[in-house]
Amino acid sequence: MNSAASPPSAAVPPSILPDPEAELPHPTGALADRDATRQAHEQTVGQRPGTLMVRPDALPPRLFLISYSESFFQEREYFDYPALRAFIQEHPELKHWFDVRGYNNLPLMQQIQEDFRIHPLMMEDVLNDYQRAKVEETEDGLFLVSRMTEFTAQLDIDDDQLSIFTGDNYILSFQDDYEDCLEAVRQRLRSGRSSILRRPPLYLAYALTDVVLDHYYPTMAAIGDYIEKLEERIFTGRSDRRLLNRILHIKKDIVRFRRLVYPEREKIAEILRLPEEVVPEDIKTYFKDCYDHAIQAMDLAESYRESVSSLVDLFLSDQSNRMNEVMKVLTIISSIFIPLSFVVGLYGMNFQREAPDGHINYLNMPELYSPWGYPVLLTILGLIVICQLIYFYRKGWLTNR
Amino acid sequence: MNSAASPPSAAVPPSILPDPEAELPHPTGALADRDATRQAHEQTVGQRPGTLMVRPDALPPRLFLISYSESFFQEREYFDYPALRAFIQEHPELKHWFDVRGYNNLPLMQQIQEDFRIHPLMMEDVLNDYQRAKVEETEDGLFLVSRMTEFTAQLDIDDDQLSIFTGDNYILSFQDDYEDCLEAVRQRLRSGRSSILRRPPLYLAYALTDVVLDHYYPTMAAIGDYIEKLEERIFTGRSDRRLLNRILHIKKDIVRFRRLVYPEREKIAEILRLPEEVVPEDIKTYFKDCYDHAIQAMDLAESYRESVSSLVDLFLSDQSNRMNEVMKVLTIISSIFIPLSFVVGLYGMNFQREAPDGHINYLNMPELYSPWGYPVLLTILGLIVICQLIYFYRKGWLTNR
Amino acid sequence: MNSAASPPSAAVPPSILPDPEAELPHPTGALADRDATRQAHEQTVGQRPGTLMVRPDALPPRLFLISYSESFFQEREYFDYPALRAFIQEHPELKHWFDVRGYNNLPLMQQIQEDFRIHPLMMEDVLNDYQRAKVEETEDGLFLVSRMTEFTAQLDIDDDQLSIFTGDNYILSFQDDYEDCLEAVRQRLRSGRSSILRRPPLYLAYALTDVVLDHYYPTMAAIGDYIEKLEERIFTGRSDRRLLNRILHIKKDIVRFRRLVYPEREKIAEILRLPEEVVPEDIKTYFKDCYDHAIQAMDLAESYRESVSSLVDLFLSDQSNRMNEVMKVLTIISSIFIPLSFVVGLYGMNFQREAPDGHINYLNMPELYSPWGYPVLLTILGLIVICQLIYFYRKGWLTNR
Amino acid sequence: MNSAASPPSAAVPPSILPDPEAELPHPTGALADRDATRQAHEQTVGQRPGTLMVRPDALPPRLFLISYSESFFQEREYFDYPALRAFIQEHPELKHWFDVRGYNNLPLMQQIQEDFRIHPLMMEDVLNDYQRAKVEETEDGLFLVSRMTEFTAQLDIDDDQLSIFTGDNYILSFQDDYEDCLEAVRQRLRSGRSSILRRPPLYLAYALTDVVLDHYYPTMAAIGDYIEKLEERIFTGRSDRRLLNRILHIKKDIVRFRRLVYPEREKIAEILRLPEEVVPEDIKTYFKDCYDHAIQAMDLAESYRESVSSLVDLFLSDQSNRMNEVMKVLTIISSIFIPLSFVVGLYGMNFQREAPDGHINYLNMPELYSPWGYPVLLTILGLIVICQLIYFYRKGWLTNR
Amino acid sequence: MNSAASPPSAAVPPSILPDPEAELPHPTGALADRDATRQAHEQTVGQRPGTLMVRPDALPPRLFLISYSESFFQEREYFDYPALRAFIQEHPELKHWFDVRGYNNLPLMQQIQEDFRIHPLMMEDVLNDYQRAKVEETEDGLFLVSRMTEFTAQLDIDDDQLSIFTGDNYILSFQDDYEDCLEAVRQRLRSGRSSILRRPPLYLAYALTDVVLDHYYPTMAAIGDYIEKLEERIFTGRSDRRLLNRILHIKKDIVRFRRLVYPEREKIAEILRLPEEVVPEDIKTYFKDCYDHAIQAMDLAESYRESVSSLVDLFLSDQSNRMNEVMKVLTIISSIFIPLSFVVGLYGMNFQREAPDGHINYLNMPELYSPWGYPVLLTILGLIVICQLIYFYRKGWLTNR
Repeated sequence: MNSAASPPSAAVPPSILPDPEAELPHPTGALADRDATRQAHEQTVGQRPGTLMVRPDALPPRLFLISYSESFFQEREYFDYPALRAFIQEHPELKHWFDVRGYNNLPLMQQIQEDFRIHPLMMEDVLNDYQRAKVEETEDGLFLVSRMTEFTAQLDIDDDQLSIFTGDNYILSFQDDYEDCLEAVRQRLRSGRSSILRRPPLYLAYALTDVVLDHYYPTMAAIGDYIEKLEERIFTGRSDRRLLNRILHIKKDIVRFRRLVYPEREKIAEILRLPEEVVPEDIKTYFKDCYDHAIQAMDLAESYRESVSSLVDLFLSDQSNRMNEVMKVLTIISSIFIPLSFVVGLYGMNFQREAPDGHINYLNMPELYSPWGYPVLLTILGLIVICQLIYFYRKGWLTNR
Repeated sequence: MNSAASPPSAAVPPSILPDPEAELPHPTGALADRDATRQAHEQTVGQRPGTLMVRPDALPPRLFLISYSESFFQEREYFDYPALRAFIQEHPELKHWFDVRGYNNLPLMQQIQEDFRIHPLMMEDVLNDYQRAKVEETEDGLFLVSRMTEFTAQLDIDDDQLSIFTGDNYILSFQDDYEDCLEAVRQRLRSGRSSILRRPPLYLAYALTDVVLDHYYPTMAAIGDYIEKLEERIFTGRSDRRLLNRILHIKKDIVRFRRLVYPEREKIAEILRLPEEVVPEDIKTYFKDCYDHAIQAMDLAESYRESVSSLVDLFLSDQSNRMNEVMKVLTIISSIFIPLSFVVGLYGMNFQREAPDGHINYLNMPELYSPWGYPVLLTILGLIVICQLIYFYRKGWLTNR
Repeated sequence: MNSAASPPSAAVPPSILPDPEAELPHPTGALADRDATRQAHEQTVGQRPGTLMVRPDALPPRLFLISYSESFFQEREYFDYPALRAFIQEHPELKHWFDVRGYNNLPLMQQIQEDFRIHPLMMEDVLNDYQRAKVEETEDGLFLVSRMTEFTAQLDIDDDQLSIFTGDNYILSFQDDYEDCLEAVRQRLRSGRSSILRRPPLYLAYALTDVVLDHYYPTMAAIGDYIEKLEERIFTGRSDRRLLNRILHIKKDIVRFRRLVYPEREKIAEILRLPEEVVPEDIKTYFKDCYDHAIQAMDLAESYRESVSSLVDLFLSDQSNRMNEVMKVLTIISSIFIPLSFVVGLYGMNFQREAPDGHINYLNMPELYSPWGYPVLLTILGLIVICQLIYFYRKGWLTNR
Repeated sequence: MNSAASPPSAAVPPSILPDPEAELPHPTGALADRDATRQAHEQTVGQRPGTLMVRPDALPPRLFLISYSESFFQEREYFDYPALRAFIQEHPELKHWFDVRGYNNLPLMQQIQEDFRIHPLMMEDVLNDYQRAKVEETEDGLFLVSRMTEFTAQLDIDDDQLSIFTGDNYILSFQDDYEDCLEAVRQRLRSGRSSILRRPPLYLAYALTDVVLDHYYPTMAAIGDYIEKLEERIFTGRSDRRLLNRILHIKKDIVRFRRLVYPEREKIAEILRLPEEVVPEDIKTYFKDCYDHAIQAMDLAESYRESVSSLVDLFLSDQSNRMNEVMKVLTIISSIFIPLSFVVGLYGMNFQREAPDGHINYLNMPELYSPWGYPVLLTILGLIVICQLIYFYRKGWLTNR
Repeated sequence: MNSAASPPSAAVPPSILPDPEAELPHPTGALADRDATRQAHEQTVGQRPGTLMVRPDALPPRLFLISYSESFFQEREYFDYPALRAFIQEHPELKHWFDVRGYNNLPLMQQIQEDFRIHPLMMEDVLNDYQRAKVEETEDGLFLVSRMTEFTAQLDIDDDQLSIFTGDNYILSFQDDYEDCLEAVRQRLRSGRSSILRRPPLYLAYALTDVVLDHYYPTMAAIGDYIEKLEERIFTGRSDRRLLNRILHIKKDIVRFRRLVYPEREKIAEILRLPEEVVPEDIKTYFKDCYDHAIQAMDLAESYRESVSSLVDLFLSDQSNRMNEVMKVLTIISSIFIPLSFVVGLYGMNFQREAPDGHINYLNMPELYSPWGYPVLLTILGLIVICQLIYFYRKGWLTNR
């Protein structure tokens, strides 16, 4: 069971986290939400609703089928959709998880839509994979949309859509990535001891929803670690102008994360409100547990948001502090040397002691003619410096801060 | 169908976006919402409710009629309203989309109002075209108000009102612009294969509402692109005082956009709450899809708003940084040269070695008489400079930041 | 009907708006809400509820009566209340609008209260004219409180209370000003063609409520214009310290305006929820229109609030900019001349070439004895200046910003 | 009745308000809410619920009884509780207001609790006098908690608890102060003409609640006056570092006031929702009036909060302005004299005109030998100064701001 | 009973509070919520729901049993679970509080789960002890989760989970700490006079919930004290860069505290909504008291949050003030000495009075040859200094601020 805890694609390994110590390149994502903008551009304006269209960069589909019952387990990749469909039809006594990864085959998608009696608008939601998490009732069961998240090395949150249709003896899932975070559930199925084998497909749908929710935590942990590193960096004094950019970036990520999780919570709350016939009470108990997790994820996002706001305050105060320090150096040096310069300038004046007529003007800078003039002056200059240093020390300007 | 994807009037072509690189003139729109102010001025105070008045700058009306059934399609501009009306009356078996563009003919407007049994207050809402999106029930069907948006080269959001009345076999739409964003729907009708042809006029009303919502995305995309350019500009260091003005302008636009979209969402939610007799369940399914789009548009606006707040933070921090840099230059140069000036001032003093009586004051600046005085002094000055440079280097003031 | 569009008392003529170009005196209103404070002081603590008291600065009452039916119209000022009352009693077939302007006659007020069976608490609300907009049911109809606003030359929002009681064949209105914003409605009545003549007095109450709401727009327009002028002033660089005060003043006004409009919206929403017997459905249709206007006014206030926040940001950034500019001048001049001063100080030193024994110290400042010393030095100084200017130019400190 | 308008303990006389002109000592209250902290410390952790405990600093109780009917009025202080109880029992035909001031006699309190059948938890709420305003139903009537406020000379809001129990023919009130703000109600009773005499005790409870609410206004007026003085002080330029502290203090007070008033509003709303049997409709009419007052107090607090936020903005901008001014003085003086110093330093150089061999280096500072050298130089220096002054004047740095 | 007031583990003794006077080490907790991050890491992703897992750092369980009735009391630690279970089964006439401290024995936990018929998901919540406060109904009674807080010397809020199951004649509590804050309740039981002995186990559950709530106050008091110290430190001018960090840390704590208390309030509100059969009315009365306490704790947290925001404002203003002070020193010294330096530089110029031809240039610096030149100059310099000092004094730059 433990093997499920760290599937290869699950958490962000700390090693690929951007190291704030290294000279990080400009974060690739802009503050404006690139994904959202991309979505906006791609959304074909004015197209007929329910028109199936596939993103040109989508992956070609791979078809996986897990068939199971309490006493049976089989996991296979099919390269031939009719064979897969035939297997499902021939084995109504088994429960099937038909897992479609990649969309880039429109006729196949339409075939699946037809075979599983999926409403065109729902199929459109599957292929146009920027939907918020939601749940809708279908003729055969439920249509669930979840968003799977990952924190990338470029300080961005990658999120993929997982669309699930449940039926009496099957669930049908769509995603546009060959790697996913559902491996843990497959491991539990393979182990042969999972209670999923005994329960209806809706319970598998719950298990998938739960594992998606569980994956929010590594994402948040990665963000939390990054916030800590940023905080440390401000305190070790190596904050630079790019730092604020990174802080604001992480803030954007957290806000985005919250916007991903919030509909997830709403979705589960709606599942809990569905009638007993659609979602039996004992499965609701499990979804209620999910609901607690979703609320905790929201709390965490809220907490990180506060932390990032504090980071911004710290950064700005630090920036102000640096200016203060610069000013102090300037002030100390100027305050010490400008008066001294005046004094030495004073004795650089050319007032003439001897009038042209040889008369001596004893009042004209007699100091210059005193035998002890220079040493006394140096002493006085030294005293001025010492007094000023004492003054600045008392003000605390000479100590670090 | 693809031709519908890029109707001439649809998205804001990037080329007409204000290029922040070019020396952009002062944005024409003020921070105070000009449209709103205009509205406030024009709103004739104390006029009888239901009084029809037309803005003097409204366009003269052009009348278009699209008549269709599953097997029929005809699109015509009429220059003669009675002929149009006659055609509608003579063909009750067809569905009609009567599209009025421009209001500037009060008697005609009153005639239409009478013929289509429109409540005076609703007609007033049509002509006084600053209404929020809303839906109201009429005797024959629904009265729907939508706002169509466009992002202009002057950083403003232009919005026009689209008013739709639905009836048993017609819809009647009003707008005050000859160009619109509904061309995509017309294309679908012209193609002859659209499901609109088979469905009731209410479905056409849905299609129009949907296309208006779809047009929010190019507006947002244009704003998103502009935000990215502003962000880039801050980082390339060419930020100037006008930049903040532009950032705040975009912020105003986003806030305004949100205020446009929010009632749109409310409108659709209200449609979904209408009884089955008014809006059948299968059409509600489509409006529910619209609702998801409206929520996504709100999310996007919210996200951009956050981005713009971050831009303001970045800008202000950058401004502070610049001052910091100015101070550093001042401090470095002053700190190096003011002490040096003191030293050279010191040796410019005129303390006399020889008393008038010929007695030599050996204590009065003997350095000046040393044969190595000058070279030693220059060396000392050089050392002072080197020490200071090392100090500043260690503080990181000599490197970029 | 157009004459109603610009009644003398309606909008704030732009000419009396404080000209931000002129040297505006200190705004008379403080940031703390004076009206509210006055209210707080005057509110007689611990007085018996329902005790009628009149503000000492209230105006003596003037009594106007408009009596009308579909075929009759009479408008008169009465100087004798019993005559007025007699006229109303003798003409139950007419509808009456009894308009009391000014309260400063307590016995008369009590007489009216008794004759029109007004609850003491309501009469107290009429005379203690700082009530929020509200609606209450009475035995005979409704008690409506509205607030009429005006934007004064001292940047303040003046608001007066309009209290309306409706009955079967009359409405009774109270206000403490001889001039009001209801003239437009009177004009419509006088014209003899108004639908008010045909409808019940409640419709007149609606018309009055509507005209009060319509007057919010000129107030907002005046504020909008003022915001634009403030924005312009920041950009033309004539912003001074008082400017922030004005900005914050306008902000206070907007917040206050919002607090005036919000209860107005609530009031209308409550009217819409009243049962059919109290407010018939066809009159509710008109109030619904009012509701839309109230929401628009709220939207506008919200929008101006955002604009003013942006103004504060602009002002503070501008203030920071000015400091930046001051620092730049200081830095440029200091950076250029301090090193030069050092160099010329250097050659002002008195190192002696000739030792007293006549020995020549060739190392002591030989430059001073070179025939080209001075011109070469001047050239070097010039080069230093040029290098620095190039450096500052590249930093962009010499151009405007 | 007017005598009730200014009871000695009612409003804060302006004279004891802290004069911001005088050198105010450090405000005694810290930003952290001292009262709340005190409460937290004193709350005995883990004590049995319903355990009666009295604060050690509470006052010893004084017992007042006002007995009244339409034809009877008697007001007495009893020093003997059994006598008082006997009087109440012997006169069931009278209505009694039993007013307990001070708690510091636990056995007496327990006796009263028993005699008036008070629930232990309610009695605990009476003695542990930091409750929020609330209403609870008891066996005999209502249990009402109000908070009485006063603005002290130390910029703090003092609030005391007034707990009222109503019964069929009595009300029982508790407070921990001999002076209170209820004197106005007593005066009305003493006058013999008050409608309280004719109505049930619940109406007296209303009258007390109302007078407490009325006392919020002088508190707010005192805060409003103080805000005005602070604003004035910023503008007369005598703002110092303590000023921000005072502003933030007042802000804390306002926030605290809002937290006091909000439950008061909730309390009255709950009274309005109580069934007819508990609170008759005609008394609800009066409580509804109270509700309006509570909302107005909330509005006022909200308004002051905004004003204080504006004060903080003004203060910070002013602080920035002062720095700006300091910088300007530095810049002007430095910019003028540093170049001049360079020029005079230039002519202090010792370039030798005469080579030791008697050869004249005509290029070495010929200016020094020109007969007009000095006057020409002085003129040039003067011109430099004039040019700079003109430059600074144009920048507006020489005028005040 | 008083002994319960200060159980050893209850409040944070002031002596262990971080003394802001001492040189406090860097707070160990980062701004990012460490606990939350830890939780996120430990939450085993994809594990089967209901799987019991124990944190490796959990304590081994200790089993305590308090058995009581009105006439019986026994308190024992059992080292043998079966014996304990047997005792409970053999004494159905007694009420039992079975208190499990520490989880680190999975088989034992599973045994307890089975014996007390605990739902696997609830048992998982017990062991995975990062749950929000909540209440759930079980077959036998209620499942209550509370969070116990403590403020540590490292400025962190430590919180532990208390999970309670109630049954007909027992309550079962779990916590992962041998020390707890429930000692006060045990003391009341031991005293033999507590009403808990007479009432059903649910009342004991209430008493435990109440004591947990009561412990929020010392936590808040500790935070309040710390805020006061921070405020004082800003005013005594010893604020340094670390100070902001501490302020933001306390802010984080307060926010976290609020997030702990909020679900507690929700939990109690839900208990109050449970049907009479589950929670009898007389026990609800006590929970209602709890509810008031929870609201007060929220209010307090809200109030502290405001205080901390004010502290941040104060800190930043203070930082700005310091820079202002630095600038003033620089400006005063520069403004005084730079002009003086110019003047003395002037008289250091070498303009020649005697032309080489012996001609006297009387215009070349005649001052230098005047017998009173030097004294007059010194006087003039002194006057300049005096004038400037007067100017600066008037500006208020010489006084403290």
